Amino acid sequence: MSQPIYLDYNATARVRPEAIDAVARALTSVGNPSSVHAAGRAARNLVETARADVAALVGARAPAVTFLSGGTEADALAIDSGVADGVARLIIGATEHEAVRETAAASGLPVEVWPVDADGLADLEWLAATLADGPRALVALMLANNETGVIQPVAEAAALVRAAGGWLHVDAVQAAGKIDIDIDALGADTLALSAHKVGGPQGVGALVAGPRARLTRQLHGGGQERGVRSGTENVAGIAGFAAAARASSRDLPALTAQSAWRDELAERMQAAGAIVLGAAAPRLPQTLCVSTPDYASDLQVMNLDLAGVMISAGAACTSGKVKPSRVIEAMGQADLALTAVRISGGWATTEQDWIHCGDVWLEAHARLADRRRRVA
Amino acid sequence: MSQPIYLDYNATARVRPEAIDAVARALTSVGNPSSVHAAGRAARNLVETARADVAALVGARAPAVTFLSGGTEADALAIDSGVADGVARLIIGATEHEAVRETAAASGLPVEVWPVDADGLADLEWLAATLADGPRALVALMLANNETGVIQPVAEAAALVRAAGGWLHVDAVQAAGKIDIDIDALGADTLALSAHKVGGPQGVGALVAGPRARLTRQLHGGGQERGVRSGTENVAGIAGFAAAARASSRDLPALTAQSAWRDELAERMQAAGAIVLGAAAPRLPQTLCVSTPDYASDLQVMNLDLAGVMISAGAACTSGKVKPSRVIEAMGQADLALTAVRISGGWATTEQDWIHCGDVWLEAHARLADRRRRVA
Repeated sequence: MSQPIYLDYNATARVRPEAIDAVARALTSVGNPSSVHAAGRAARNLVETARADVAALVGARAPAVTFLSGGTEADALAIDSGVADGVARLIIGATEHEAVRETAAASGLPVEVWPVDADGLADLEWLAATLADGPRALVALMLANNETGVIQPVAEAAALVRAAGGWLHVDAVQAAGKIDIDIDALGADTLALSAHKVGGPQGVGALVAGPRARLTRQLHGGGQERGVRSGTENVAGIAGFAAAARASSRDLPALTAQSAWRDELAERMQAAGAIVLGAAAPRLPQTLCVSTPDYASDLQVMNLDLAGVMISAGAACTSGKVKPSRVIEAMGQADLALTAVRISGGWATTEQDWIHCGDVWLEAHARLADRRRRVA
Repeated sequence: MSQPIYLDYNATARVRPEAIDAVARALTSVGNPSSVHAAGRAARNLVETARADVAALVGARAPAVTFLSGGTEADALAIDSGVADGVARLIIGATEHEAVRETAAASGLPVEVWPVDADGLADLEWLAATLADGPRALVALMLANNETGVIQPVAEAAALVRAAGGWLHVDAVQAAGKIDIDIDALGADTLALSAHKVGGPQGVGALVAGPRARLTRQLHGGGQERGVRSGTENVAGIAGFAAAARASSRDLPALTAQSAWRDELAERMQAAGAIVLGAAAPRLPQTLCVSTPDYASDLQVMNLDLAGVMISAGAACTSGKVKPSRVIEAMGQADLALTAVRISGGWATTEQDWIHCGDVWLEAHARLADRRRRVA
């Protein structure tokens, strides 16, 4: 068998060589950034340089960035900060990541689910009407969906949220490094990032704050990250995050061009009866969510895995459990949910990877159809 | 100037080569442990193997270990879990780390501060009397103090806490890898660990649970770590943690022997008028907390740093701020607090490092005394 092909970047990206180097270098010299001696000052310098690099990935300035342990903690810090800031309700996109949904559910505040259309796009008229009728809200709308790649109309939502005096939290974990992001243009009050989705190490993320957001401390202790997030900084992880952020910005044109390879695969699968989810919506250039009637998601994943091609049935967090994609159900496409798979490329993905994935998928699909014909 | 000498392991240990290798290897092959394909299964395997290794560091079994972002989060998860389990008050050792103190203060429950004697040892009679008089308590007693190295009578405290039906949380962040730890012998209900204090990477830690502890989820989302701690696992960090844990166990005899070098330095400094904190208490073998009348902590740190020797004035978290050590104040030694420094060795520290530290310190101290004589 040839080298395995990894097409599950939305679960976790292959770590970029720049990030591996940055982590290794930091680990060989690491100090505690709170120490005043030479090693401590060097570690502090690494963290603060990285802060500017990560900020630049979303058009922000360094002081806007709070480093923490990942996207889940970033979503939690944003929502908890909004609650502490006095919002009286939470409005949550119907296709938000579980980190947002579950945190909202645990907040104790009323949670309203903001519907999406059949392509997964949030309904702005619904938002306008809902904001007009009720107390101050924190609104959570992800920039791009992790399963479908659908890109939400965040700037339009932000204008509505701002007019209503609300707080807009944008989970940009899956969008970062895949499309150009400018926090000011988006109008987000808080924006969540995760290093491992942009080719950095797992276990590090950031919450980027807009000018109106007041963050409330969540972890108490030594007072790191300006008192907002205690705990010794993950210096090597932060350095790796920054290296990946820089490389992601550099590679954005190449990643954008990957949509052509993605679309060619989609066409081949569609010719075999598959249906692309979110086809009419703007989408991330390297994500394909596609459902094939009578071909169970987990069987597709298994068949491809046996052939050395790694893809996913829905989000990684839940893909261990056999249950329909909640995202696809929210799009009103429940009949497609149990036969959908996600194929997602990244910085190291080649055209040949997409083609080979299609070859393998089509072959397995044809074998299945053949078997069924003989049984029938 | 010769190679700088790092004697601030209690702030953060030099990362062990085994840990650097393990992190680098994991980063080159990393998948999401929740993915079902080959890369996901390999990542899951790394995490679960590491879980057993980290458990072994404290005599526990793998299922007892919950991985999270560090010691601060481990302390928070323990205290929040105790609160969710229905304790009505918190009893906190007077010399606990800020991660414990600040989390307790934010809990909303009454907090009683458990006094220590002049050597920093917790007063067991006070605990017995306090437990006898009041509702169910969570008691937090660190295994070894980060500033003085003083080792608390945890097993004795555990017997009292158990008899009272309470919850004992043991912050073992600073003790792990420096003394032998057995969670059953200690009788801890929860025990906090941090990778970067045992020579692993920063940004990863663990909470180890005893048989009676019920952990409450703190971060909500994908349901990782058996639902207790959501967020994609820090696979490379966890692998590095495990490698460091294994190496720490292997090197424990060598570290234990380091107390002789530490004591030789203490004698030289005492001969120049310095006072050892916690001298009569059992202490970590590689920690020296020493106060020198009329020689400000930060001046000592600076003088040594200029000579290429890195030590600390109190805990790293707060050492950026000039304020007296709260730990030393709690020992009733406030007059020693502003002139105390902490010198702490680790796995890569040599006898020559301790000797050179003494040479440099004595030279700077003599220079200061000489300057003062000439001014007088």
